[in-house]
Amino acid sequence: MSEAGAPTAEHDAARADRVVAELRAVLPARTVVADPDVAAAYAHDMAALCAAGRPAAVVLAEDVDQVRDVMRVATRLRVPVVPQGARTGLSGAANAIDGCIVLSLTRMDRILEINPVDRVAVVEPGVVNADLSKAAAEFGLAYPPDPSSWETCTIGGNIGTGAGGLCCVKYGVTAEYVLGLDVVLADGELLRTGRRTAKGVAGYDLTRLFVGAEGTLGVVVRATLALRPAPLPALVLAAQFGSTAAVGRAVASIIEAGHVPSLMELMDATTVRAVNDMAKMGLPEETAALLLVALDTPDPRAELAAIGELCAAAGAFEVLAAEDSEQSAMFLTARRLALPALERLGTCMIDDVAVPRSRLADMLDGVAEISTAYDTAVGVCAHAGDGNTHPIVIFDAADAGATERARAAFEAIMALGLELGGTITGEHGVGTLKRDMLARELGDIGLRTHRAVKAALDPLNILNPGKVFEPGR
Amino acid sequence: MSEAGAPTAEHDAARADRVVAELRAVLPARTVVADPDVAAAYAHDMAALCAAGRPAAVVLAEDVDQVRDVMRVATRLRVPVVPQGARTGLSGAANAIDGCIVLSLTRMDRILEINPVDRVAVVEPGVVNADLSKAAAEFGLAYPPDPSSWETCTIGGNIGTGAGGLCCVKYGVTAEYVLGLDVVLADGELLRTGRRTAKGVAGYDLTRLFVGAEGTLGVVVRATLALRPAPLPALVLAAQFGSTAAVGRAVASIIEAGHVPSLMELMDATTVRAVNDMAKMGLPEETAALLLVALDTPDPRAELAAIGELCAAAGAFEVLAAEDSEQSAMFLTARRLALPALERLGTCMIDDVAVPRSRLADMLDGVAEISTAYDTAVGVCAHAGDGNTHPIVIFDAADAGATERARAAFEAIMALGLELGGTITGEHGVGTLKRDMLARELGDIGLRTHRAVKAALDPLNILNPGKVFEPGR
Repeated sequence: MSEAGAPTAEHDAARADRVVAELRAVLPARTVVADPDVAAAYAHDMAALCAAGRPAAVVLAEDVDQVRDVMRVATRLRVPVVPQGARTGLSGAANAIDGCIVLSLTRMDRILEINPVDRVAVVEPGVVNADLSKAAAEFGLAYPPDPSSWETCTIGGNIGTGAGGLCCVKYGVTAEYVLGLDVVLADGELLRTGRRTAKGVAGYDLTRLFVGAEGTLGVVVRATLALRPAPLPALVLAAQFGSTAAVGRAVASIIEAGHVPSLMELMDATTVRAVNDMAKMGLPEETAALLLVALDTPDPRAELAAIGELCAAAGAFEVLAAEDSEQSAMFLTARRLALPALERLGTCMIDDVAVPRSRLADMLDGVAEISTAYDTAVGVCAHAGDGNTHPIVIFDAADAGATERARAAFEAIMALGLELGGTITGEHGVGTLKRDMLARELGDIGLRTHRAVKAALDPLNILNPGKVFEPGR
Repeated sequence: MSEAGAPTAEHDAARADRVVAELRAVLPARTVVADPDVAAAYAHDMAALCAAGRPAAVVLAEDVDQVRDVMRVATRLRVPVVPQGARTGLSGAANAIDGCIVLSLTRMDRILEINPVDRVAVVEPGVVNADLSKAAAEFGLAYPPDPSSWETCTIGGNIGTGAGGLCCVKYGVTAEYVLGLDVVLADGELLRTGRRTAKGVAGYDLTRLFVGAEGTLGVVVRATLALRPAPLPALVLAAQFGSTAAVGRAVASIIEAGHVPSLMELMDATTVRAVNDMAKMGLPEETAALLLVALDTPDPRAELAAIGELCAAAGAFEVLAAEDSEQSAMFLTARRLALPALERLGTCMIDDVAVPRSRLADMLDGVAEISTAYDTAVGVCAHAGDGNTHPIVIFDAADAGATERARAAFEAIMALGLELGGTITGEHGVGTLKRDMLARELGDIGLRTHRAVKAALDPLNILNPGKVFEPGR
């Protein structure tokens, strides 16, 4: 650091010391981490190429009162607070800001109630998605949203990002399962939103305002979640297509015929080849797209056969329906291996562009063109039934030129999504990674409205500032 | 009016003239109604006992630009604007305010698009719910939310109130079907929210902030709605119970067993007797509750029989499963006649309290106690599967004492709902009718947050002011 910079660094250090001292004055010592090396471990989530700052302190909150105390200290000192779950996010939303308090909610991990008559769960934010699923299963119930990170990610993080998953095509996303929230506001006040009833329209839908807000409006400290009866085991069909146009036709005709698959996943040629290379699965090398369709109805065979016929009519060169759940699981292995297989080829940036289902083939073709134009490998996995594509940009992070091209391709893919009437993020969120593109998606009036809502709830701009969008005027 | 009041009345008249003149300067003459007698016809919705003011003018808007012009005039003159659909609401949310501009959206009634691959409809706010249903049916699709007024109410009104209906127990409420909105803001700017993709988490969920906001945050001028495959015809079971405890047990055990009925309606003794009196349906007079349960699965007979057994085990003294759709329709006639039958007994105030499903029997018992305590007849219909009860308070509107007791009973029923962990409104909204009770449900921090959001979007407080909650400090 230059000499001119030294006073600032000293000032920063003194400020960090003050933050730690004030936190320690109100919180148990065990909850406040000040050691810079330990704190650094909390600096970022799993997004590639997203900058992260150095926190002044990490608080491992154990209860609501501690969260309120943190926000009161932050308000007094005007220090940014970055709420954090398991840091499995893919957009940098949980990344530290220089001098901030990282507020980790992972220790608040109690499932407070599961009620099978009301079909609700009441949980703390640090509950791991898989733990809730297991607990619900004991009552014959399920909490459907199932992001890939479900075995480690937290419900609080799921709420913050508005997480999706594979089963959303039939059962919906996180937002649809959040009935009510307890939220600590910027000034430390506790807000209760929503309800535990199946229906309710009492006042503004503040609950959903906090879902997907990435901790910029408040800190979720408790959630009442809707559960539903556990689905039956699904039967899976695999179809291979020689062209993107054909798989696009198949997806469209399956939906148009009124089917409601419980899963509908697509892998492009690049992804299929990568999986073959890694796992020797013997998938046809000439495939342009592999489509997996699952049904979890009581007797899915006839309907799955009808879907198979629609695939064939659309141009599938191979259609295989699983005989049983074992074979179904095998079919799904290919999908599960997609990301690990692509990660063997280089550093991966996972994009998350959703387009109207009818534009799926256009999206695949456009991504292929971008891959060529930017001389960057891109493999596509997609929740095809939702039009939610994950183009995965693969590059050599040690090569500055390749990294630059990868970034540019990543941006171009989002721009393509917008052109096709889609959105820059279907389920991963904005964070810092997509902040500039979000401004483009929202437009001036949209951005102005976001800033007005933010200012109304966080007038000092201390809640995860600079995430989702840049602070306004 | 006293002499002291006269100058105010003159001032009001002059102000009204100015509003009309400014509207006529920017809008086609055919869209501006200034005649007080004609305007008076737009003064209120269908809520009993809700005051309504005298509008300065009614604008029958034909397009988005006209709506924007109205809001610009209103901003310039600081005149309140009351957005309005078909005025079938039950909470006074669409009632005029003295000197306001009533902004009727019923002429904006085009269905702009139905896309069976994307499973979306794009509509103007004045489209009648039933017209959208019919149009969707031509593609084998359905728009599920089905308030009782579905044959006349508008989609804009449904969005404003967050309307529900009978099929919500399986298919969800209006909020779950609104993907994106075009909203004219208080200052006349046009905001686009949401998306037309199945999934999307780009920025705050502003879409759902406008759903159920009763026109206090903006004027919805276009909506992108999710559709789903049309359900199969349902088969209905009717069960008669001798006690509220028994019907409560039945509802709980049906849900606990994992069934997902497409309809689950309850009528109490008062309602059953009223229907018998009107339609001579021969329902057992000794019934304490009639429960109707419908399934729309491909082969519902076995599951319906299992539900019948659960009803019997819970204490039903009569269980009858329909043989076919004709008999099913007959069973549902009793439910359809409930309100008309109760209306023969006096003026009806329809309450709308949702409680956790597990507290349904407590709610029914509490309402019966309130009926006795306030010496006021109350019949209860309920969307039992949602815990959403409609206690209907019946009184002689010509009798001031009876009217006062009815009002008090109506309030007491809401207070009971809150005590049982419920909400004062499951699907009808707040308007002016439940404004004071809403403040109680929200609490101080909830109300403060509502006011902050309102001020952020409508700083001059011109959008349906005083609805949902009183303006703050």
